[in-house]
Amino acid sequence: MQAIDKDRDEYLYRQVFDLVSRNIESGALRPGDRLPSLRQMSRQAGVSIPTVRQAYVELERQRRIESRPQSGFYVRAAREMRLVRPSPPFSPVQKPVPVRRRSLLDRVNDGLLSPGLVPLGVANPCMARSAAKGLHRAMKRVMARAEERSLMYAPTCGEPALKRQIAFRYLDTLGISVDPQDVCITSGAQEALSIALQAVAGRGDVIAVESPTYHGLLDLIESLGMLAIEVETCPEEGVTLSALEKTLQAHPVRACIFSTTLNNPLGVSMPEQDRRRLAALIDRHDVVLIEDDVYGELRFDGVRPRPAASFIQSGRVMTCGSFSKTAAPGYRIGWLLAGRYRDEVRRLKRALSCSSGLLQQLTLADFLASGDYDRHLKSLRPVLKRNAERMSACVARYFPAETRTSSPVGGSVLWLELPGAIDSVALFDEALAEGISIAPGPVFSPCDRYQSFIRLSFGHTWRADTETALGWLGRRARTLAA
Amino acid sequence: MQAIDKDRDEYLYRQVFDLVSRNIESGALRPGDRLPSLRQMSRQAGVSIPTVRQAYVELERQRRIESRPQSGFYVRAAREMRLVRPSPPFSPVQKPVPVRRRSLLDRVNDGLLSPGLVPLGVANPCMARSAAKGLHRAMKRVMARAEERSLMYAPTCGEPALKRQIAFRYLDTLGISVDPQDVCITSGAQEALSIALQAVAGRGDVIAVESPTYHGLLDLIESLGMLAIEVETCPEEGVTLSALEKTLQAHPVRACIFSTTLNNPLGVSMPEQDRRRLAALIDRHDVVLIEDDVYGELRFDGVRPRPAASFIQSGRVMTCGSFSKTAAPGYRIGWLLAGRYRDEVRRLKRALSCSSGLLQQLTLADFLASGDYDRHLKSLRPVLKRNAERMSACVARYFPAETRTSSPVGGSVLWLELPGAIDSVALFDEALAEGISIAPGPVFSPCDRYQSFIRLSFGHTWRADTETALGWLGRRARTLAA
Repeated sequence: MQAIDKDRDEYLYRQVFDLVSRNIESGALRPGDRLPSLRQMSRQAGVSIPTVRQAYVELERQRRIESRPQSGFYVRAAREMRLVRPSPPFSPVQKPVPVRRRSLLDRVNDGLLSPGLVPLGVANPCMARSAAKGLHRAMKRVMARAEERSLMYAPTCGEPALKRQIAFRYLDTLGISVDPQDVCITSGAQEALSIALQAVAGRGDVIAVESPTYHGLLDLIESLGMLAIEVETCPEEGVTLSALEKTLQAHPVRACIFSTTLNNPLGVSMPEQDRRRLAALIDRHDVVLIEDDVYGELRFDGVRPRPAASFIQSGRVMTCGSFSKTAAPGYRIGWLLAGRYRDEVRRLKRALSCSSGLLQQLTLADFLASGDYDRHLKSLRPVLKRNAERMSACVARYFPAETRTSSPVGGSVLWLELPGAIDSVALFDEALAEGISIAPGPVFSPCDRYQSFIRLSFGHTWRADTETALGWLGRRARTLAA
Repeated sequence: MQAIDKDRDEYLYRQVFDLVSRNIESGALRPGDRLPSLRQMSRQAGVSIPTVRQAYVELERQRRIESRPQSGFYVRAAREMRLVRPSPPFSPVQKPVPVRRRSLLDRVNDGLLSPGLVPLGVANPCMARSAAKGLHRAMKRVMARAEERSLMYAPTCGEPALKRQIAFRYLDTLGISVDPQDVCITSGAQEALSIALQAVAGRGDVIAVESPTYHGLLDLIESLGMLAIEVETCPEEGVTLSALEKTLQAHPVRACIFSTTLNNPLGVSMPEQDRRRLAALIDRHDVVLIEDDVYGELRFDGVRPRPAASFIQSGRVMTCGSFSKTAAPGYRIGWLLAGRYRDEVRRLKRALSCSSGLLQQLTLADFLASGDYDRHLKSLRPVLKRNAERMSACVARYFPAETRTSSPVGGSVLWLELPGAIDSVALFDEALAEGISIAPGPVFSPCDRYQSFIRLSFGHTWRADTETALGWLGRRARTLAA
């Protein structure tokens, strides 16, 4: 680094500021790199620590660097990331279409689940380390007091102790009063979505989905022979309500399945005033809202937004939740707040799978009651935030300059639009051969959108090969885009 | 007891024979009572042990008493039980009907699952004591080697280690070669049935079922909007094949769902030559056989019959299995041998519930590999047999003389026809108020048959209140029949 000249006619802090800025601009300091500590820089530059601090504060104010608690100062992405937009641009109202995504999903799913890959393709946070010990302790307590009972059938709609804990958490984190009797425990949120859809819609019915939306939902709509209609989203606020209104006016939509908090893959969280407007639209148009709230607990800031469902007057609403994104995907425990559909939901749950695993329900009830779940989430969120920043920095460093990305405020995925009409399914295949899993864009739409988009997960533990894989992907994207 | 007169002009053994017979006829010795041991009787009657043995052998030959290994001699039911028959009698071919059983099942299901009842209504054997320790040991081993992994998603169609164990067991117990890739792990056999049905049939399609049949199957057919057509059964051999043939000729049946081994509630096991004839019928009529084989391991004699599926040439066949009736209902782990429907089954499993619980799959794989599963089954079967005998004896003792019963060769349920047009749903309600659960006959038919039938489970641990409850039920039935 160039030395500081104490005789130059400038504020010393300004010289430090310029020194760092030049190094960022030259590429000597790259996005994500850590700056020397205050003490190191003070020693290197021969100025006082307060002078260095003044320079760093100014650099931070100008968004060139950022401070991370207990860690230090880091170079920010060199330019503001350009936000993804739905692509191709939407006409205001889409048409209902049969979904034909199963064979692509066969291919992608097999790829994603291959062992030994760098797991950038699977959405759930890999929280094993933080949750495993607490869950194991909870399970030991359950086995000590209910070894035989834990082998028996749970009640159809679930173990009362877990239903109470879930209801209590709605009250505790959201101030929403939920009747434990309204909670139906399901085998993950996927079964909750399946039951919710079957409770209110049948073959040929039109289901409104966000664009882009979770591929498992499209898989389900296809399997049930329903039609999907895409609704435009905005990368800052989620579903575009004007587009939704026109859609509801133009087509006989039976139900909307939206994820208002941290939609997968956008990672956006709808503002509360829009949730209220969404609820009013649902009420006015006599449709059902099925709210997929599996990421509700995973905002980086720990603030859990109220589900839009809680603003709905008509009662035509169900909310899905899950422990798969927050604690233990392999437990297959989710839930459905069934409300006025309680009887139908209970019947479907009974007919389709009897009940869900009792041991896991008892274990999760104990895990929540012990406070370990909350402690685990508190430690998980900053890890996810840090990983999101690292991944954004890597994208800025390695991917083509024209790459657009989402700006997730929580969850575990980043959504990218690659330039140059790159075929993301071909890139998926190439990456797989390289030992890297990614999720290609077209699985997130029923209409062949998002051909050049990919979804990357930052939910797993950050490893040396994570950055290597991102480097490879970025270089490959540059080559393909050229 | 009356003494033996050594001077009488009769064989001494014959006098012992008459003595016991008279006591049985007078009611001094009741069905299920244990006779004095050879040594006790020898001392009491003042005759040699070989003489007593000769008398007992003759009594056994005449089916008045029976020997139980390591236990002694017991009085058999005083009269041969009259076997149940489908009721009202069948015309050869039934009509397809929409199923309307859900509201009755709501009521019955809530009743059956109430805690604190004498559990004569729930079908699964209560094997907790025998399986719990072994499963817990297996789980500890899994947690020691795969604590973090056990929280993750299982592959869509299941953990390979468990699939291999299941395939191996088909080879080991039946000599049938199964490709582990053909095994799709499901959330219990109920989900296996659900996926199998959805893989081959849709709303409005006709599904052939045994009469009587498992109520959960009717619940599923109703939920999926399919039609059911009943096929007559015979209480010794299961589905009446001539009736099935006429049914297949008369109606466009899409699939048959039969339980050829220990059909619930009949407990009958179809002879092998009939399984072959059934397979030939299925082949000839271009329908699909979905074989529900969840009780295959529970014949009292430990002989596992070959599923009819294994004789089918066309490949239009799926077999459902489960650990719910043999080890741990609350684990919710079953499977489907999907055969030619493998791709469709995988897609449905993925769309409807992603995958099943991994921890339970790893635990069961370890439980099977350790040999503990086999040891557990070997100890479970004689308990079930003994309970079946006790329950039959109680029915003979307490219920109206005209009561007809099934003669189960395994499993955990007894099927009874009560005389005098007793309303079994009303009896269900009365029993519930008395703290006893039973399953009323009409839930086992889509067509209001079996109004005066009940199903009793002998699968739970026999307790003092089991006989008390049977006594109450029998007396109530006598009163109602009178």
